[in-house]
Amino acid sequence: MRRALALAVTPGVPLGPNPRVGCVLLARDGTTIAEGFHRGAGSAHAEVDALAAAGEAVRGATAVVTLEPCNHTGRTGPCTEALVAAGVRRVVFAQSDANPVARGGADRLREAGIEVEGGVMADESRAVNRVWSFAVEHQRPFVTWKFATTLDGRSAASDGTSRWVSSRAARLDTHRLRGLCDTMLVGTATVEVDDPELTVRDEVDEPVATQPLRAVMGLRDLPTDRRIFNDRAETVHLRTRDPQEALASLRARDRQHVFLEGGPTLARAFLGAGLVDEVVAYVAPMLLGAGTSAVADLGIGTIADALHLHVSDVTVLQGHDGEDTNVRLTMTPTHDHRSS
Amino acid sequence: MRRALALAVTPGVPLGPNPRVGCVLLARDGTTIAEGFHRGAGSAHAEVDALAAAGEAVRGATAVVTLEPCNHTGRTGPCTEALVAAGVRRVVFAQSDANPVARGGADRLREAGIEVEGGVMADESRAVNRVWSFAVEHQRPFVTWKFATTLDGRSAASDGTSRWVSSRAARLDTHRLRGLCDTMLVGTATVEVDDPELTVRDEVDEPVATQPLRAVMGLRDLPTDRRIFNDRAETVHLRTRDPQEALASLRARDRQHVFLEGGPTLARAFLGAGLVDEVVAYVAPMLLGAGTSAVADLGIGTIADALHLHVSDVTVLQGHDGEDTNVRLTMTPTHDHRSS
Ligand SMILES: NC(=O)c1ccc[n+]([C@@H]2O[C@H](COP(=O)([O-])OP(=O)(O)OC[C@H]3O[C@@H](n4cnc5c(N)ncnc54)[C@H](OP(=O)(O)O)[C@@H]3O)[C@@H](O)[C@H]2O)c1
Ligand SMILES: NC(=O)c1ccc[n+]([C@@H]2O[C@H](COP(=O)([O-])OP(=O)(O)OC[C@H]3O[C@@H](n4cnc5c(N)ncnc54)[C@H](OP(=O)(O)O)[C@@H]3O)[C@@H](O)[C@H]2O)c1
Repeated sequence: MRRALALAVTPGVPLGPNPRVGCVLLARDGTTIAEGFHRGAGSAHAEVDALAAAGEAVRGATAVVTLEPCNHTGRTGPCTEALVAAGVRRVVFAQSDANPVARGGADRLREAGIEVEGGVMADESRAVNRVWSFAVEHQRPFVTWKFATTLDGRSAASDGTSRWVSSRAARLDTHRLRGLCDTMLVGTATVEVDDPELTVRDEVDEPVATQPLRAVMGLRDLPTDRRIFNDRAETVHLRTRDPQEALASLRARDRQHVFLEGGPTLARAFLGAGLVDEVVAYVAPMLLGAGTSAVADLGIGTIADALHLHVSDVTVLQGHDGEDTNVRLTMTPTHDHRSS
Repeated sequence: MRRALALAVTPGVPLGPNPRVGCVLLARDGTTIAEGFHRGAGSAHAEVDALAAAGEAVRGATAVVTLEPCNHTGRTGPCTEALVAAGVRRVVFAQSDANPVARGGADRLREAGIEVEGGVMADESRAVNRVWSFAVEHQRPFVTWKFATTLDGRSAASDGTSRWVSSRAARLDTHRLRGLCDTMLVGTATVEVDDPELTVRDEVDEPVATQPLRAVMGLRDLPTDRRIFNDRAETVHLRTRDPQEALASLRARDRQHVFLEGGPTLARAFLGAGLVDEVVAYVAPMLLGAGTSAVADLGIGTIADALHLHVSDVTVLQGHDGEDTNVRLTMTPTHDHRSS
């Protein structure tokens, strides 16, 4: 299974709406017959990839696969049927498939007389497909809210100036995180006021080849000359103020991971609806003492109602050429917060 | 010199107004005759300590000492005279003594015909006596400003509640840092409103044996029943609003390291006067969205005037029993900030 998990995360596999899956086919004596992995939406599933490499040798073999074999015909046929047809004797898998259209694979295999064992290193497989698992189980994309703040909680000085609160290292890191998501989301006011391009750019400020979807949310019409509407990436204007509705419409577009970049009004709406799953804060070691608050009024009146975050990672982003060292905190809300 | 530096930081030496000093006496053939170190105010200096251990064997020896031998009669006699009288041939020292009353040791030794070499591993010795060196060179105590904040820059919720923003681990760590200083300083308003005891307490909340001086600053009279006036430690009320004057009067009491704990008004006064030498911030991963700002208005109107801090350390203080993980940032102001 360890080998199958390693195959699942083979570098270079393009991001897409599908989970990362690896498969190893073992002969009765334990030797490896063939290996396979899923190369992204539209290409063969890991099991089929491995079966193709194995040929006839697979009769009576054991298939070790990181995800429960799928039982539906999407852009590719069901893996269960391919395994049955190939004469596999036993299937060991890690994570169950929670996807309502694809699940039921284990049952189908058992019906066909194949010995099935599930749950082997399921947590490890789930970690590999953290966001995919979340999106399938919750039927909505995973939401990462990112914000930048000074040490005293400001995002801009009192005259509105804010270039730059974050260091260059923090801005580069933000682009890296954007690139790990498939959607960037901002409110209409941010588009109107800041006119961000919302693309993923590399170290020399060039847009990378594969860009996430750019989504803007809010009811007002937006000027078409805003940079978010340029041809460097796809853009969608979600004409709603309801976070739930916005996520549903992104889910309908196969989106799994939303990078929520602001502004404060939109962030408050998602926090208030309990729809923030991860918080990434870049803390700049500077003091302003006054100015725009990085986080909007959340309607919290007393300390007992504070929104607590569980810290999963603290990373120091060293400053170069005299630039500030920034600190990135990655966190999870410890409870749904719906008091706003 | 490495050995002399190690002697200087011998554990268990009580804190006091004196520097940490170590001394090694070497025979002409390089073998060690004797070692010594300074055990705190009132006891023998390192050189005298080593000479006492050496006896007659010291004639013609080399004294390796981490600080330039003193040239004045304080609670102990001048070390220069002790070295001359003992017949030492050569003196090698690290850091020069910047203390105006004690310096001149190297010159005095040369006059007496002793070969003198200074500056060997001076930076290392300076690091050992960071705060002492600072206080002697600047003729005022080193000031560490500590504050606690939520991730969004708040120190209390809008109803004034603030127990607890910091985790237990952060509060324990604060007590540890208090114990490394010789003075704790707060404003009169904090004493009136919060009534802190301002003692150093251990893991079971018991006051430790040696307590720093408690100092409160401001013009108003204070109720005598405040806990700061209890008999667990010494307390001084500095009737001034001038940070410079307050530090001068603490210096006159042999104080070297002030731990400035608030409130925001006092912190602003010290920041505005450029009298904060180190900043320690405890960041709690919680959001309030509103409430009291952890840092007072500093009169900064535009981002270019932000007070930048150089980060020297980031430490994660793991939470136990479901408590928040806090992050401690230790920083130095990157330029004097006098705009308030
Ligand atoms: N610190 C940071 O990291 C950061 C990041 C981004 C932006 N900003 C700053 O934030 C400022 C914009 O602030 P903002 O908070 O007004 O921007 P915003 O959150 O981007 O946009 C707010 C607008 O979004 C629409 N909207 C969508 N869903 C909503 C909901 N559930 N509730 C209320 N409104 C909803 C509304 O416009 P409609 O009338 O169109 O519905 C609303 O006026 C900019 O000046 C920018 O500089 C800061
Ligand atoms: N977040 C934290 O870590 C923290 C720490 C401590 C306190 N606090 C909170 O801070 C609140 C008190 O705030 P605060 O800022 O008013 O307290 P403060 O700074 O302790 O005291 C302010 C008072 O100190 C005197 N003072 C001394 N030097 C001054 C100067 N240079 N300029 C102005 N005044 C000077 C003035 O009183 P006179 O009229 O007597 O001269 C002034 O009213 C408390 O409620 C407490 O909860 C927070």
